[in-house]
Amino acid sequence: MQNEKRKKVIVLGGDGYLGTALRKHLGNETDWEVYGFDNGLREKNVGTIGSKSLTPFKPDSAYLDICDYEALSSVFEEIQPDAVVHLAEQPSAPFSMKSVKHATETQRNNVVGTMNVLWAIKEKVPQCHLVKLGTAGEYPDWLYNNRIVPEGGRITVDYQGSGWIIPTPRYAGSWYHFSKLFDSFNIDYACKIWGIRATDLNQGIVYGHIEGTRFDTDYYFGTVINRFAVEAISGQPLTVYGTGEQERGFISIRNVVQAIKLVVENPPLEGEYNIIHQLTETHTIKSIAEKVAKITGAKISYLENPRSEMQKNSIKFEAEKLKEFGLKTISMDEELPRLLETVEKYKKEINVNVLFPTHRALWK
Amino acid sequence: MQNEKRKKVIVLGGDGYLGTALRKHLGNETDWEVYGFDNGLREKNVGTIGSKSLTPFKPDSAYLDICDYEALSSVFEEIQPDAVVHLAEQPSAPFSMKSVKHATETQRNNVVGTMNVLWAIKEKVPQCHLVKLGTAGEYPDWLYNNRIVPEGGRITVDYQGSGWIIPTPRYAGSWYHFSKLFDSFNIDYACKIWGIRATDLNQGIVYGHIEGTRFDTDYYFGTVINRFAVEAISGQPLTVYGTGEQERGFISIRNVVQAIKLVVENPPLEGEYNIIHQLTETHTIKSIAEKVAKITGAKISYLENPRSEMQKNSIKFEAEKLKEFGLKTISMDEELPRLLETVEKYKKEINVNVLFPTHRALWK
Repeated sequence: MQNEKRKKVIVLGGDGYLGTALRKHLGNETDWEVYGFDNGLREKNVGTIGSKSLTPFKPDSAYLDICDYEALSSVFEEIQPDAVVHLAEQPSAPFSMKSVKHATETQRNNVVGTMNVLWAIKEKVPQCHLVKLGTAGEYPDWLYNNRIVPEGGRITVDYQGSGWIIPTPRYAGSWYHFSKLFDSFNIDYACKIWGIRATDLNQGIVYGHIEGTRFDTDYYFGTVINRFAVEAISGQPLTVYGTGEQERGFISIRNVVQAIKLVVENPPLEGEYNIIHQLTETHTIKSIAEKVAKITGAKISYLENPRSEMQKNSIKFEAEKLKEFGLKTISMDEELPRLLETVEKYKKEINVNVLFPTHRALWK
Repeated sequence: MQNEKRKKVIVLGGDGYLGTALRKHLGNETDWEVYGFDNGLREKNVGTIGSKSLTPFKPDSAYLDICDYEALSSVFEEIQPDAVVHLAEQPSAPFSMKSVKHATETQRNNVVGTMNVLWAIKEKVPQCHLVKLGTAGEYPDWLYNNRIVPEGGRITVDYQGSGWIIPTPRYAGSWYHFSKLFDSFNIDYACKIWGIRATDLNQGIVYGHIEGTRFDTDYYFGTVINRFAVEAISGQPLTVYGTGEQERGFISIRNVVQAIKLVVENPPLEGEYNIIHQLTETHTIKSIAEKVAKITGAKISYLENPRSEMQKNSIKFEAEKLKEFGLKTISMDEELPRLLETVEKYKKEINVNVLFPTHRALWK
């Protein structure tokens, strides 16, 4: 710590997958005061599809809907946080593709919530560091195939002459992912015109479990590696979409909490909008299925791909900033056995009915 | 017309500045059936700031709020339009900067409305051509200073080697302008995954008047040249922000209606997302003020710039597509005397109290 004052950190979305992990981790630090808030959206949405956290989990954040600006800004005014970690979004791509209602609600909730957070910082705690969860899904396969994704908000390209500085090219692959891109633009602009300091964590696909945190396994809210673990332990084949040769970035949830702690401790300058790539490894989906199959003996089943994406791509990410902050990476080979052990422990709770979609996601 | 069937065209936002002009223009064509819809948002918002249309104007579109998906999709199903001209957005940058409520409402209204239009087309009239009003404000001064803005959704740049195809770089200069950029991304993506055909009209600043259409003159909803005309005719100085050396694209409202008619008659292919630059001239704000001053003898007053923008820039736009369609451009020098004549006619109705902001717009 740079000074003796205890750092006050607000975690929005405190009852989500990352939010619970983060609160439990940061809560163990004696030099931080952590305040968790949540509106129960994740718990509710997981419920509507007939699922629940595989691991025992009880939401225990204070109630706050960040789409209610008055409530949000009162909390910021009262607590005067040094940092706000904003994880309070509808986080599922397939959920956002289910219907027009899911699409509009995802974009409304995420864009309005983030805009409110920006205004509340401007109005109540202008020196506060906004740490916002973004997504590596802002760099879609067709755009970055065979390229290295640069880390940061601007790049210099040649076009109509040399040395043109442009916003790092981004796009998305679902209505959810676009909501994150829209948030990124709004944050970037708020830093520019109001001098807010913000870090946008463009995160890879998270996997793994930390004791006491929620763990979703269903088609909509379970992430791919966690679902592979559940499929393997319940004796199902591992379901790979298409050829499985889609390459993506990944990070374990243990590394996520360490990374966010380091980011909070390294705020950007006033007016600076910092994009950090929060991921530690890239793999194809198929190669991960093969890792899980090798440990567990599970079969692999290749399904028609419901998503609109390339069947095969290659993507690499520049990801230097977390290393500079001192992140010690945890490898997937180290983490997978631990994940499988956790799922084995809760094997009786597995609901195989929620592993596959009951509604068509309207990618096509 | 390519065939004998009468073309059915829905105009969303039929009671706005462009909507009224367009409906009256298209209504004169014998080979088109035009259906106007509006939710009265413009009339209401102009009312909240104590203003009204300078020219006599009575809203006469059918009621429809496009944020109500059931109502919207029923209309599309019933009418089975060949084209939907979507002008139904909150169109004011300073209005969107007034408060957090104005910011979130602008983005919610515009993004959700456009998303609903996309789904209603997909579900009810998949062959329908979406003609969406965008803005040249997606190409901000700092990004395109001393450059030519390319027309279309993708450009090829050199970066990590040659021949990288990226979405045309865009950004914005207000929460309103970002809402239009977000719409553009959603439309682009809907074309890509669902095969919708869409034209995004990235339009310059409109000016002028056509008999019978609404004409706003206030700080929030009046566009800059129209406000210069009102200031000149009412004996006020012309109010220029900053140095006035900001260069922008412009188009007269007479040209807008001709342009949209040509666009409707030239639909893109299935799945094609076409960006067209709907503007005919570029000028600095100062040079336009000088044109108006020269005709009317008005003084020019340079005010502190409330906006966050460059004090001086140079921007040019590629704008070939409307020429290819056969647009006959109307010059500003030809249009200005006609505009001043109209304002002179309604001189007694001018409300000088609404020419300047009563609330601070929070650009800074």
